[in-house]
Amino acid sequence: MSLTNATPIEVAQAARTGSRRLAVLSTEERNAALTAIHQALADGKDEVLAANRKDLEAANKAAEGGTLSQSLVKRLDLGKKGKYEDMLQGILDVRQLEDPINKTTARTLLDDNLILSRLTCPIGVLLIIFEARPEVIANISALAIKSGNAAILKGGKESSHSFAAIASIISTALSTTTVPSDCLQLVQTHDVIADLLRLDQYIDLCIPRGGNKLVRYVKDSTSIPVLGHADGICTTYLCADYPVEKATKIIVDAKVSYPAGCNALEQLLVDESALSINLPQIAEALLQKGVSLRCDPKSHTALKDKLDPHSAALLQPSSDTDFDTEFLDLTLAIKTVSSLEEAITHINAHSSHHTDAILTLNEPTANAFLAAIDSSSVYWNTSTRMADGQRYGFGTEVGISTNKIHSRGPVGLEGLTIYKWTIAGDAQVSAEYGAGGKQWKHERLPADDADVARNAEERELLRRFREGGMKNGNQVP
Amino acid sequence: MSLTNATPIEVAQAARTGSRRLAVLSTEERNAALTAIHQALADGKDEVLAANRKDLEAANKAAEGGTLSQSLVKRLDLGKKGKYEDMLQGILDVRQLEDPINKTTARTLLDDNLILSRLTCPIGVLLIIFEARPEVIANISALAIKSGNAAILKGGKESSHSFAAIASIISTALSTTTVPSDCLQLVQTHDVIADLLRLDQYIDLCIPRGGNKLVRYVKDSTSIPVLGHADGICTTYLCADYPVEKATKIIVDAKVSYPAGCNALEQLLVDESALSINLPQIAEALLQKGVSLRCDPKSHTALKDKLDPHSAALLQPSSDTDFDTEFLDLTLAIKTVSSLEEAITHINAHSSHHTDAILTLNEPTANAFLAAIDSSSVYWNTSTRMADGQRYGFGTEVGISTNKIHSRGPVGLEGLTIYKWTIAGDAQVSAEYGAGGKQWKHERLPADDADVARNAEERELLRRFREGGMKNGNQVP
Repeated sequence: MSLTNATPIEVAQAARTGSRRLAVLSTEERNAALTAIHQALADGKDEVLAANRKDLEAANKAAEGGTLSQSLVKRLDLGKKGKYEDMLQGILDVRQLEDPINKTTARTLLDDNLILSRLTCPIGVLLIIFEARPEVIANISALAIKSGNAAILKGGKESSHSFAAIASIISTALSTTTVPSDCLQLVQTHDVIADLLRLDQYIDLCIPRGGNKLVRYVKDSTSIPVLGHADGICTTYLCADYPVEKATKIIVDAKVSYPAGCNALEQLLVDESALSINLPQIAEALLQKGVSLRCDPKSHTALKDKLDPHSAALLQPSSDTDFDTEFLDLTLAIKTVSSLEEAITHINAHSSHHTDAILTLNEPTANAFLAAIDSSSVYWNTSTRMADGQRYGFGTEVGISTNKIHSRGPVGLEGLTIYKWTIAGDAQVSAEYGAGGKQWKHERLPADDADVARNAEERELLRRFREGGMKNGNQVP
Repeated sequence: MSLTNATPIEVAQAARTGSRRLAVLSTEERNAALTAIHQALADGKDEVLAANRKDLEAANKAAEGGTLSQSLVKRLDLGKKGKYEDMLQGILDVRQLEDPINKTTARTLLDDNLILSRLTCPIGVLLIIFEARPEVIANISALAIKSGNAAILKGGKESSHSFAAIASIISTALSTTTVPSDCLQLVQTHDVIADLLRLDQYIDLCIPRGGNKLVRYVKDSTSIPVLGHADGICTTYLCADYPVEKATKIIVDAKVSYPAGCNALEQLLVDESALSINLPQIAEALLQKGVSLRCDPKSHTALKDKLDPHSAALLQPSSDTDFDTEFLDLTLAIKTVSSLEEAITHINAHSSHHTDAILTLNEPTANAFLAAIDSSSVYWNTSTRMADGQRYGFGTEVGISTNKIHSRGPVGLEGLTIYKWTIAGDAQVSAEYGAGGKQWKHERLPADDADVARNAEERELLRRFREGGMKNGNQVP
């Protein structure tokens, strides 16, 4: 890792050069680098926490002065019980994941002795822009190395001491491995984000990890593809046939278990026929958990009639903007709909295409909902809070994407890969095929047995290439 | 199809609304629309060709006046022998391809009665900007409908009469099907491209089909993801061990069979040890085909010594810019390299990451090349001209992408799809899992048997949704 004050273009070029060499390292070499980073960060805990305390002191002062929020101070704190150990464990978790690159995912026999293969490979250079959490640096470094990508990391100024300490430790650790240190670039220079976002000739993918404002700024400022989501306005549609105990359990979990999460519930659509059947009990449970309910006129009327006066007095009327708002706290907007069609139309118009759910016992209704909702995750009878890479079994999560291309929903290591097409032939040429010529066979072959044999001679060639690449580093764009 | 003078925002909103309804149509309904379009265009051939002649007359005048190139006039001509029939056949070819959407591509048992599925689905709204070829309108319409995507098409003004005729015929044909006519929007209004490129809230993917200048303009002008490639600077690296007859066959095909193609060879890297062994015979064959050879000093010297004086006199010295140039005609730049490492470094620095090849009998050398070259297609012992969706067995081709995310290389129908995650559960919630709670099972299930059952009741619901969607059309963003 280079902890650098270099110019953005120097940083990006160095990462590019490093990425070429990282891309051809073996699984074992990349895993060995994660082992070294893990060990070094375990050994350097005191040093990192000392640096982290400097950041915390400054942050606490800023918080007292009102220029920084208390929640940000909390996020900064690496000394909180178990947090440092979780960061270390995360590196080992990534190490033990299946290698996502150099996998043959499709093979076609084009003609005799002419085989087309699709081979997974790294994307190249990632730009990660993040806010306060200093543990992200270890997490992202592990993900990048595991997937064979170089990464440029730019963090918030609030955690600069922590970053410097972690970067220095990782840098020393990497120097004992075959992973080129240029593959991880920690940018310390101020005010370089706008410049980095212009370097689309060197940077292949940008991943902003932070709030809505950061993500929107990044999306509006670059022609580099951006992976992420700006908002998490998640909706659940409640049908009258769904048992009230189950509905209550799901809706309370979705709203209350972590209201600041992007997968937390922000809107409840209630079928008209459910207003008096199961909404009152659900509303009562939410009010007991301290949730503010912003009700449209129909649900407001229905609940007022059914709730006890104390609860009824807590109800608030909804405004139109409530149905386009990510509350991120204990607030829920409730809207009455008269049909599945109306629910689908409302969700496709007002959700942020993150995660939406239906609660019903009717399978055809559920399938129609799952087919028609245009969101990255669509659920039947479970909580929107399920949208998470860990829960999906990805082992770790790069982030959650509401993009319509590449990766959608919780993004695991696979989202940091692309593929290349290879053909191995025996001097067949394009002009031999077609009208009057040879015919294509286009026979699908199994991809599983297609692992490319890598013998000692090839390893030696790759090693020499990497050494040559280091010497010729400046020539590689 | 709407042939429209509406504002860009009206066009985009209508396409968005249409896309929601198209996305839930069955395979049979989408195929039936292709059948109807095919039949209508077959019946309307005279009408379309009459309109096309008007465009041709205007284009010929412009060509005489020097404001239009003859090659563009040729591309406009739909009356050329077999061209109209090819266009019609293309629609049937797309129709018979496997449906790319509603396929379950992964399933995981998260816990008992809690199943995660990954389901392919349309991207949403495509913006296709193309230059002269009027047949693209039929081709893209077929691809969009087949993959469940709405499309906004904006063509060059040179083919406006042809477009109007084709659009009117397709529009009439679609009105007899269940595909909403708003799903295809042909924009006639002038000077709207810049406005359309700003509508990233409605348009999900932009595909420019045209020259380098168009693609660069589009990439630089939008935050909508762009699928395509600006340049095709393809390279072949020749090793001394490769038989000269095979090498000649491959290199002549790559350079000569279609020099204007993006997959045509532009640079030949020759291993120093091959300069006197097999380069002279290859150079002689290329010169006989009329290829201009731009040689670096070493290859120039080697060839001068070996070629007869008449051929030697045709050799030209290369300049540095030749190795960053897409010639698109019968010109080839030749550079001497001293090692595999140098070849890899040169290609990664100077190719356009489209298609590059190595010619060698040495398998470890080839595998090292295939692993290290960062291009969308990388070949061993075949011609760069193989890079083509038809040749890869995709049936048809949306275009060739040098992007590092989503789709790379020749893009088939699959490139017009994304996926959504669905979970079907029984009131399990997030807070039940984790430390001290229930454990995730994360058991991979076979995806093949996971086709979603669609019964009569569900079809009826979908039908009602589509009708509701039409009535509520204006509300859908």
